[in-house]
Amino acid sequence: MNDIVLLTDFGIDDPYVGIMKGVISTIAPTAKVIDLTHAISPQRIRSGAFALLNSYTYFPAGTIFVVVIDPGVGSTRRPIVATAGEYTFIAPDNGVLSYVLQRDPQARAYELISHQHRLSRVSNTFHGRDVFAPAAAYLSAGTPIDVLGQVLADYVKLPMPRMEITPGRVRGEVLSIDHFGNVITSIGRLAWNHEDELTLTHAFDPEQAPVRLSASACAAVYEDRRIDRISVTYADVPRGSLLALVGSSGFLEIAINQGNACAQLGVDVGFELDLLMG
Amino acid sequence: MNDIVLLTDFGIDDPYVGIMKGVISTIAPTAKVIDLTHAISPQRIRSGAFALLNSYTYFPAGTIFVVVIDPGVGSTRRPIVATAGEYTFIAPDNGVLSYVLQRDPQARAYELISHQHRLSRVSNTFHGRDVFAPAAAYLSAGTPIDVLGQVLADYVKLPMPRMEITPGRVRGEVLSIDHFGNVITSIGRLAWNHEDELTLTHAFDPEQAPVRLSASACAAVYEDRRIDRISVTYADVPRGSLLALVGSSGFLEIAINQGNACAQLGVDVGFELDLLMG
Amino acid sequence: MNDIVLLTDFGIDDPYVGIMKGVISTIAPTAKVIDLTHAISPQRIRSGAFALLNSYTYFPAGTIFVVVIDPGVGSTRRPIVATAGEYTFIAPDNGVLSYVLQRDPQARAYELISHQHRLSRVSNTFHGRDVFAPAAAYLSAGTPIDVLGQVLADYVKLPMPRMEITPGRVRGEVLSIDHFGNVITSIGRLAWNHEDELTLTHAFDPEQAPVRLSASACAAVYEDRRIDRISVTYADVPRGSLLALVGSSGFLEIAINQGNACAQLGVDVGFELDLLMG
Repeated sequence: MNDIVLLTDFGIDDPYVGIMKGVISTIAPTAKVIDLTHAISPQRIRSGAFALLNSYTYFPAGTIFVVVIDPGVGSTRRPIVATAGEYTFIAPDNGVLSYVLQRDPQARAYELISHQHRLSRVSNTFHGRDVFAPAAAYLSAGTPIDVLGQVLADYVKLPMPRMEITPGRVRGEVLSIDHFGNVITSIGRLAWNHEDELTLTHAFDPEQAPVRLSASACAAVYEDRRIDRISVTYADVPRGSLLALVGSSGFLEIAINQGNACAQLGVDVGFELDLLMG
Repeated sequence: MNDIVLLTDFGIDDPYVGIMKGVISTIAPTAKVIDLTHAISPQRIRSGAFALLNSYTYFPAGTIFVVVIDPGVGSTRRPIVATAGEYTFIAPDNGVLSYVLQRDPQARAYELISHQHRLSRVSNTFHGRDVFAPAAAYLSAGTPIDVLGQVLADYVKLPMPRMEITPGRVRGEVLSIDHFGNVITSIGRLAWNHEDELTLTHAFDPEQAPVRLSASACAAVYEDRRIDRISVTYADVPRGSLLALVGSSGFLEIAINQGNACAQLGVDVGFELDLLMG
Repeated sequence: MNDIVLLTDFGIDDPYVGIMKGVISTIAPTAKVIDLTHAISPQRIRSGAFALLNSYTYFPAGTIFVVVIDPGVGSTRRPIVATAGEYTFIAPDNGVLSYVLQRDPQARAYELISHQHRLSRVSNTFHGRDVFAPAAAYLSAGTPIDVLGQVLADYVKLPMPRMEITPGRVRGEVLSIDHFGNVITSIGRLAWNHEDELTLTHAFDPEQAPVRLSASACAAVYEDRRIDRISVTYADVPRGSLLALVGSSGFLEIAINQGNACAQLGVDVGFELDLLMG
């Protein structure tokens, strides 16, 4: 059985996520279910898409992701299942899978049409339980994808996060704030080559040429604040100081060593930010 | 091994739930443990009883539910195990199982009396770890229920949620508020027959005759607010508008399309509400 | 495969914990992963050390604990693996394991040096994913500890919690506040002998002689408040009243029957408190 990973905006204060696991356990008793997170802000499709993009490659080949951020539940938006690389994704067709699927020219999407692979009674408000969890369980238990669904010509695509490379400057935006208050931006993916050199590959447009940067010559600029250089890790600056660094998913991150950068800067998702390249 | 489902008011900030899973893994290493929720408001027995009622049927036959909302831990309240249909329930005898057990005339309750099936040292404050988790693990591993317990003549019953059907009106109360701010009432269970027709079956008194309703002729009334008609799904009203609909467990729900109804209405658990039937 | 238990300060709002589980599932597909808690206050090493101390013995022999509270990630602090009794612990070498390891004179620590047992690309900010989760998975799957690491002469030790026994008085401090608002102190471990008699064994210095106490003659004193006697359980006092009792891990606890003691007393971790012994 393939692993099933759940990513929703349901929170964990209600029994909704547990109920989905009950449905899965009934259909696929030996499937392993892993929570990615259920704390996507209610109905923020883009945050879910970005969380999925940064996470899915760390799971075993064959993993089935169930992504339920679904403001249009019960309306005419289609339930879909899609494949990209060695992974399978189940979600409402509202763009939440698009950051992942657009990276793979071979990605295929299907509409979930089989009524035999849903709960016998489908509600208008909880397709996570009635449609998406059963589909994941049947796939994990070996039902072929084309028994569940029917090939789609296309799927809904979100606008890509802002990431504009111009001579001397990269303009990006804040994509998420983590639990530590670290501010994660759309500027990436950055990778260290050696001591002072980084390569910036366009995370959302693989056709753009990579750019080389000197870490010590860069500055992250947000409103009237300027953070000189890209640091290697938190401990490169004194405790309580602001720094810019390459986050764990390769995106430029603004942080405070042992502190909360979001609280101090007062930024939020969507705020604009520049990386000046020396 | 049967699945074990945990439902508590322990929260997940402390190690309490993890410790219960350690105890279970020691006794029944291959049992699957699923969290239903640990966010029942501390010691609100009724909320736990309602969450269990709406969830348990989605789990596989044979599932063992461990329900620890236990303001009387260490006092003389009895620890019990009960069966209803194909499910088993372990809890303090304070009424938290009563919504489920009263639905099944064949339900049986036992007092957990075996000292061989507890931890060797039982604390006065954490029976979830010392009494309830071991009982669930032994049952999952195959110990017969009458080795663990002794049949009880009766168990504690909570007053049922308010749900009064009179000509032209159903009076109910708010039973819970979910993570999205949806307001879930005791008016149910409602099921759609076809386009405009619903059947209301008394959720807490199966002997009462079902009632038929016209969705378009109904109105939900709370204080001086009136929400006309019962909608099919959130998207039936403009974004930001209030609506009444049939929630995923069949109870009348007040919601805002892509918004937070609880925050806007200022209601809380226990508030009274009417459904006028045209 | 041995169970793997996760204890971090990552919270569960971000995908970090889920990603660690993906890494583990890739390397050790059949290992069971249990969350102890992810809600240690960011970078509070002592709180993590205390939570681990009170929890680990409830897990099966062979369990591997991954403890990631890591303010120094990316700096020169060493990643370690250690054994104590039948348990294995993986963590940054910052003292978070010391409460557990110091209890066992046979405890051994190793530095995690094998580059073959990490992800191929190790970030500077997320060793939970890149170093610690893979190490746990390889150990669970049977890789010997000395293939992963190299014996260390010593490891970092935290100062022990305050717990001073003098004639007639024990001075301690508040070590944690739980989800119910119960105030857990460093005064322990206490065990009931019979009706009114307790034995106090020094939790952090096993060489100190145990002391006997009369429960009814004791008083817990915090600033100008005095709570007479050590009660057996919450229900020994009226609802809403303050009491002192022996908590589920054997430490003196201040609580309110069906209420929140922390909110009423205004205490916090680190506050001083005395137990007067009659």
